[in-house]
Amino acid sequence: MAEHTVPVYKTIRALLEGKKYQTLKDVLVTMNPSDLAAVFEELDEDRIPLLFRLLPKELAAETFAELEPEAQELLIRGFSDSELREIINELYVDDAADLVEEMPANVVKRILAQADPQLRTEINQILRYPENSAGSIMTTEYVSLRPAMTVGEAITRIRRTGVDKETIYTCYVTEGRRLLGTVSVKDMLLADNDETPVQDIMDPHVISVGTMTDQEEVAQMLSKYNFLALPVVDTDGLMVGIITFDDAMDVMEEEVTEDIEKMAAILPSEKPYLRSNAWDLFRHRIPWLALLMVSATFTGMIITGFESALAAQVVLTAFIPMLMDTGGNSGSQASVTIIRALSLGELEFADLPRVIWKEVQTAFLCGLALAALCFLKIMLVDRLLLGNTDITVLTAFVVCFTMTVTVLIAKLVGCTLPMAAKKVGFDPAVMASPFITTIVDALSLLVYFGIASALLFH
Amino acid sequence: MAEHTVPVYKTIRALLEGKKYQTLKDVLVTMNPSDLAAVFEELDEDRIPLLFRLLPKELAAETFAELEPEAQELLIRGFSDSELREIINELYVDDAADLVEEMPANVVKRILAQADPQLRTEINQILRYPENSAGSIMTTEYVSLRPAMTVGEAITRIRRTGVDKETIYTCYVTEGRRLLGTVSVKDMLLADNDETPVQDIMDPHVISVGTMTDQEEVAQMLSKYNFLALPVVDTDGLMVGIITFDDAMDVMEEEVTEDIEKMAAILPSEKPYLRSNAWDLFRHRIPWLALLMVSATFTGMIITGFESALAAQVVLTAFIPMLMDTGGNSGSQASVTIIRALSLGELEFADLPRVIWKEVQTAFLCGLALAALCFLKIMLVDRLLLGNTDITVLTAFVVCFTMTVTVLIAKLVGCTLPMAAKKVGFDPAVMASPFITTIVDALSLLVYFGIASALLFH
Repeated sequence: MAEHTVPVYKTIRALLEGKKYQTLKDVLVTMNPSDLAAVFEELDEDRIPLLFRLLPKELAAETFAELEPEAQELLIRGFSDSELREIINELYVDDAADLVEEMPANVVKRILAQADPQLRTEINQILRYPENSAGSIMTTEYVSLRPAMTVGEAITRIRRTGVDKETIYTCYVTEGRRLLGTVSVKDMLLADNDETPVQDIMDPHVISVGTMTDQEEVAQMLSKYNFLALPVVDTDGLMVGIITFDDAMDVMEEEVTEDIEKMAAILPSEKPYLRSNAWDLFRHRIPWLALLMVSATFTGMIITGFESALAAQVVLTAFIPMLMDTGGNSGSQASVTIIRALSLGELEFADLPRVIWKEVQTAFLCGLALAALCFLKIMLVDRLLLGNTDITVLTAFVVCFTMTVTVLIAKLVGCTLPMAAKKVGFDPAVMASPFITTIVDALSLLVYFGIASALLFH
Repeated sequence: MAEHTVPVYKTIRALLEGKKYQTLKDVLVTMNPSDLAAVFEELDEDRIPLLFRLLPKELAAETFAELEPEAQELLIRGFSDSELREIINELYVDDAADLVEEMPANVVKRILAQADPQLRTEINQILRYPENSAGSIMTTEYVSLRPAMTVGEAITRIRRTGVDKETIYTCYVTEGRRLLGTVSVKDMLLADNDETPVQDIMDPHVISVGTMTDQEEVAQMLSKYNFLALPVVDTDGLMVGIITFDDAMDVMEEEVTEDIEKMAAILPSEKPYLRSNAWDLFRHRIPWLALLMVSATFTGMIITGFESALAAQVVLTAFIPMLMDTGGNSGSQASVTIIRALSLGELEFADLPRVIWKEVQTAFLCGLALAALCFLKIMLVDRLLLGNTDITVLTAFVVCFTMTVTVLIAKLVGCTLPMAAKKVGFDPAVMASPFITTIVDALSLLVYFGIASALLFH
């Protein structure tokens, strides 16, 4: 994206330096909040407040919501109380709650002091829910209609109250806050008669989520059903808010990044890469690196156990990296495929036998193909081409046989561990390449030396 | 998700067996197309047509669009021409185009024969665009308004034509198919006066994509700007269609799965796991496995080159797996972080110096911490606890020094290769763990034996 913002950013800086504020204003209003935020982030910090004050109120609030917390804090610290009040009360409730969550305590105090009483109540309500729950990402601003209202009355109500609502296109028909059905603006516009009561055209089969539902599940439901928004109900079945598709898209991106980080043995971080310093990166990377390094002790112990045998047949050592890497790659292919299928909801624990059977068949196909290729490689490249006469047909056979067994073990471990993790409530994403590799390394060496002992050392 | 469908599916099977068709009908209409499709997929194939015929026309079409290609083909083969005509002409154009793309030639012929002439033209138009382009996933059904229309006229137009349009909430103001601006139904409903011309309230700063824009970029733009839909314009700047947020969500899921597969050295497949047989899995996994196995030859050659030295100091062999694994893990942490940041558009090639500097600092922190831990582990566990007296302080030093250098190399290779790949137009996702591991393995062994030669072998 950055390619597109660079030229605009330069124009804006030039206009700022030339103090062409009217032109600047005219340029800024043509831009989208998200692009404006990107431009602001590129400027010197002390220019942001000046630029921000050139924006009309609504655009200012929308741009503010898109800024990174650092820039938000900087702006708030520069705001007068009345400026702060204007921006805060123009924000959507969910954005205001996000802001309160990110800011230091003294800034939060000022924000809450300037928020309208109703907004303050709603922010506090959202902040009560645990992180990553539906309650914590919902907004309490939605259009609710009474079942007996006519379509005409409903449209009048939307016209009167709709400007503050995050989405007006799906309306919720409630009675005493109990959710009876949904009706879309499309249905109302396309209704034959303005006198039709809303309850006659509403869809009474409402799909909703609880306040404690995990945000990832919410995002997947929105994606599956192609809804604009999902209603959130509390434990008493009363409607408390909605989650809109755009928040779901952000959640999807965030959760995918988290999964990918876990799969690469990194503790998930919410900071974008360029905003993380070396210390942040270190803290998120070292725990798994250290743990996996120490657990490689077992692999080392296996080699030490066969040290004397290895000293007699040093040629075997040369194949250790190839066997370990192929085992690791085979295992991570299986585990990553399974982890992704689990997180897309395509698989559940009951499918384990089918998964194992599929992986065993695949492992045989891969194992045999690799063994054949490996045999050719050893005999033609290592023995003939490189002239390593220590390599006999028997050595090649030991290596290739180990290869087949290793691939089988790797695929089995790779498919079983993530499903088992899911079953016992761990995050399957952790059971990806690095973890699987460490286990498969040890197992493949045991197989290697076992087979070698039986066939070569006597 | 499957947890939720199982009970419904059992009820439906029981009702089917009991031939309770009226009850079945009443149950089916309460369900969502996406859930209906999931239930259909669980049934015996020969039950699907019967069940399908119980659905009202619109729900039938929506459910049909959600089915997997196999079930769609089965249904079409069972349809009479008039049944087929009804379903096809009820589909949204983009779903119809997807269908035509998936079906075998003889089925396509029947579909196109039953499609209305206008639909047929539109399907053909979409199919002309290359796979994964904006043109290939757009729909040609959108609401277009003339600039001089009043808000009242615009709403009347939506009420008259809106039922066939995929989204009515964002309308496109065009003149001679040239896109002048967008106006939302919200803006129109909230307009003070029904006599206001649309051009007075439209937003003239339209963000659009070209027909050839990559679908991943389109999805990211929709997510970034929180739009319901993005307009697609052809090379002459004329509007040809829209892409809606729900299609963007599907694209995001698909592209993420593809990236994850590539990162795990798997050729991307569009089939869900449970629908892929062992042969499919084999074909997608063997190419990279074989390539990476053969490239491990270099690692083997390095070990062979130091064979005689190793025979004298077999204790060094025991640390090979630990060094290789830690190098692989360090490299994949860096590469995966960079690949994700690239695919989210957070990084571009110009950031390379900053990235390298960040990774060098991180590598020093990680390398030193790991070396210290490793030294302790070797001296306390390997030497004292396991009583391996072959291990001297010098050996431990050689291993730990190699560790630090390996981590540095791994992080450098891990961050540079994906960015270089992106620069020259390759997919950075391929430069993930398996590929990096193979390179880092060879480099770390060279370092290991180099340092060992200098300090131990004399």
